[in-house]
Amino acid sequence: MSALRPLFVVAGIGRAAGTGAAAARRFSKEGYSVALIARGEDSLNALSDEIKKGGGEAAPYCIPSYSADDITSAFTSISAQFPNSHYALRAALFNVGYAVWKPFLEVTAAEVQESLSTSVAAAFAFSRSAILKFKENKLDAENPKRGTLIFTGATASTRGNKMTSSFSSGKFGARALSQSLAKEFGKDGIHVAHAIIDGQIMTGAALERSRDQPLSGLSPESIAQAYMYLANQEKSAWTWELDLRPAQEQW
Amino acid sequence: MSALRPLFVVAGIGRAAGTGAAAARRFSKEGYSVALIARGEDSLNALSDEIKKGGGEAAPYCIPSYSADDITSAFTSISAQFPNSHYALRAALFNVGYAVWKPFLEVTAAEVQESLSTSVAAAFAFSRSAILKFKENKLDAENPKRGTLIFTGATASTRGNKMTSSFSSGKFGARALSQSLAKEFGKDGIHVAHAIIDGQIMTGAALERSRDQPLSGLSPESIAQAYMYLANQEKSAWTWELDLRPAQEQW
Amino acid sequence: MSALRPLFVVAGIGRAAGTGAAAARRFSKEGYSVALIARGEDSLNALSDEIKKGGGEAAPYCIPSYSADDITSAFTSISAQFPNSHYALRAALFNVGYAVWKPFLEVTAAEVQESLSTSVAAAFAFSRSAILKFKENKLDAENPKRGTLIFTGATASTRGNKMTSSFSSGKFGARALSQSLAKEFGKDGIHVAHAIIDGQIMTGAALERSRDQPLSGLSPESIAQAYMYLANQEKSAWTWELDLRPAQEQW
Amino acid sequence: MSALRPLFVVAGIGRAAGTGAAAARRFSKEGYSVALIARGEDSLNALSDEIKKGGGEAAPYCIPSYSADDITSAFTSISAQFPNSHYALRAALFNVGYAVWKPFLEVTAAEVQESLSTSVAAAFAFSRSAILKFKENKLDAENPKRGTLIFTGATASTRGNKMTSSFSSGKFGARALSQSLAKEFGKDGIHVAHAIIDGQIMTGAALERSRDQPLSGLSPESIAQAYMYLANQEKSAWTWELDLRPAQEQW
Repeated sequence: MSALRPLFVVAGIGRAAGTGAAAARRFSKEGYSVALIARGEDSLNALSDEIKKGGGEAAPYCIPSYSADDITSAFTSISAQFPNSHYALRAALFNVGYAVWKPFLEVTAAEVQESLSTSVAAAFAFSRSAILKFKENKLDAENPKRGTLIFTGATASTRGNKMTSSFSSGKFGARALSQSLAKEFGKDGIHVAHAIIDGQIMTGAALERSRDQPLSGLSPESIAQAYMYLANQEKSAWTWELDLRPAQEQW
Repeated sequence: MSALRPLFVVAGIGRAAGTGAAAARRFSKEGYSVALIARGEDSLNALSDEIKKGGGEAAPYCIPSYSADDITSAFTSISAQFPNSHYALRAALFNVGYAVWKPFLEVTAAEVQESLSTSVAAAFAFSRSAILKFKENKLDAENPKRGTLIFTGATASTRGNKMTSSFSSGKFGARALSQSLAKEFGKDGIHVAHAIIDGQIMTGAALERSRDQPLSGLSPESIAQAYMYLANQEKSAWTWELDLRPAQEQW
Repeated sequence: MSALRPLFVVAGIGRAAGTGAAAARRFSKEGYSVALIARGEDSLNALSDEIKKGGGEAAPYCIPSYSADDITSAFTSISAQFPNSHYALRAALFNVGYAVWKPFLEVTAAEVQESLSTSVAAAFAFSRSAILKFKENKLDAENPKRGTLIFTGATASTRGNKMTSSFSSGKFGARALSQSLAKEFGKDGIHVAHAIIDGQIMTGAALERSRDQPLSGLSPESIAQAYMYLANQEKSAWTWELDLRPAQEQW
Repeated sequence: MSALRPLFVVAGIGRAAGTGAAAARRFSKEGYSVALIARGEDSLNALSDEIKKGGGEAAPYCIPSYSADDITSAFTSISAQFPNSHYALRAALFNVGYAVWKPFLEVTAAEVQESLSTSVAAAFAFSRSAILKFKENKLDAENPKRGTLIFTGATASTRGNKMTSSFSSGKFGARALSQSLAKEFGKDGIHVAHAIIDGQIMTGAALERSRDQPLSGLSPESIAQAYMYLANQEKSAWTWELDLRPAQEQW
């Protein structure tokens, strides 16, 4: 890493209790400034404040939708607030998806559209902005890796199932994108990875409930640890894809 | 098959020289009436006329776009022209896609949108209409299979590559849909299959050019033969997915 | 096909009630002479007699084991009995496997060895003999395809599972072989295919039992039909792999 | 970790310049005692001496072959030298394979046998010994994970190719085993992982040669870092499989 402060951008925070938030906290702890993009203003601000209170640097970017325009606009704001003179985008996480679990005939055209927009089209826009920023980083002996772009995938990223026609169509699409990007930009020192989260993610409330029981899902912190590992992988051995699931999961 | 005449619907005809047209001709030869859905009116009408001149029954349905509304509307017209009193939809082929081969940073948001609409959202609408029609077919000893829905896939359906971010995102999405449908509707006697066309399809002009050379691509007729085999598979052994490539292909 | 009579060789007959036997009967009906290789003499002879009584041409080759030597020796006998002057090997089916369903710690070294010998090493020997015979067939306009080599795979060919460590190690291995062969010999007009039989195969007794119930497995005849389709695929569109499962299967 | 010293066992050291040796060095640095199993005595002893000189604890176990008996016997010796009173096996790496790159018709039956024995049968024996040792570790709040068993895979683990029929049959088989084990033993706190090394591994001489050129392969140290990460994964998010390849690799 250069003298520039590393920046981490994450899109998709939900209620600040899942993977996106855990990743933001983790990258902050490791010295990254964090830019948070999401639609829900309250959770976004709460997470940003929490990180700042913890001594980290964070900024929220609330967007009305995951449209290409809104994402591009968020990145413009991020670039202004975290200028290249002091910051270098080093890691980006696309943690957005639209999960619908319905029999096929109950899925509406609007839900299909929303799944494709959120899981795929937004992923294109986010990737474009992140890669363009990565390309501004110099590639030299000290910084052999320009940046790491990570996608949060799901079981539905590799298997269509009865209730997941619309969800998995979007997740498959994002996975295709991640593979294309990994192949195209590896030689430029840009690392693209896709994590298949194969199980239930234990968000705040769920974790609380299961405290006295055998753990039944993935902790967001463990996922964040995987993302940190990916961001730190040396250039001679990069992972495009890994799966993550609880020890006791049936699969 | 019952006394009702079997009907085959295909969406995606292109210039009437590729897979969709070959499938229409083949299903017509095997006794199916054929309903042709496409955007290009001239090719559509030419193919319809050609099939009728050859003694088959065909009807063209030109639609302005592959939107859910336009596809649903085409199926309404098809139902009127091929009423349940005399016809039974037995096979449907979704042969639509939007191939863009470009470096990622040159892909526009509009192209991403077009790929997702054409390859995925349209596939949802087409599948919905076809499955609802299949469900009108009685399931009995004589007709153990209500119908077969086939998707034309591509190499890009299972592998993202440098120049295919947008194309493969759409094709991955359609593949996820086909797998979800195969799992959900098999028990209802509705067979959903996905063919990975792993090579160049030799359309009219391409075939002409290669006449004196070793064949270098897939003939649409061979693909159509595979589709006919899928439509005829017995209920105890259905294929969800097969690959098709020329004998001499490097892969 | 030339004036030479087409020959079909199958290894793995079991009790003559499953896939191997159904394939032998089907290829016989389509005009192939059939050479049957198996270890169980009684079933082997019974099937051979049955085919001959039905007007077909068949010969049994009982081998003590699926060792390379025994398989090579069987092919030598087949070549003597079905000489190139009158016959041409056109299709070969490797239908052998060693299914052990056991918790890992109960699997013995001998069972591992047996699974690898039967599912993989024997497949190498069988493939070698079949391909060498195929290569004796002339490749010309009338016979663009020298021959088709088919492997019977299983669910365990693509997924290791709790009780299948030894079975799936063997089936994975055979699948790797089939893919290597498909890639190497396609340009020589030799077609290699792998069928994933994803469900219970309904052999004689099982079919009998289920007569009054909804069909719950794959009929060997439907699998044989798939194999015949593969053998007949035109050179411009060959399938390496397809899955086969009952319509109502949960997967 | 308990007060017991963690032990790492690795099988497959080659010339002590590749993945197995790098992993031994890395686990030693992280505080593991290391038990080295291999066939080549000189490299084995050299590596063991090197680790001991560096302040680590190491012991070589030279075996005549990777047969089940020889591997079991090595583990018996390891158990004697690293008794449960002071040591706990916490990680094991199966780094053995037999790479043959030949056209199929040149592959001998002996080579097939050697590939299956080395890549698969030996993996069964190694896994059995490692898992039985892991089961001796107590599973409690402080030690939620009994141990981690890692397999070194290759491109040939998931794709058969023209020259790799025998190599990939073995590597496919080992991958099946690793998946079966991951599914069976996860609930017991035993983590099984499979790394697909998708590229050339830069061993000593190769690294030396490329010093002034752009790095063209995987460094063993980067692979070892991935293995250390796998061994440290928290129980709520375990990886069965990840791929590793150089940034600039074409794939």
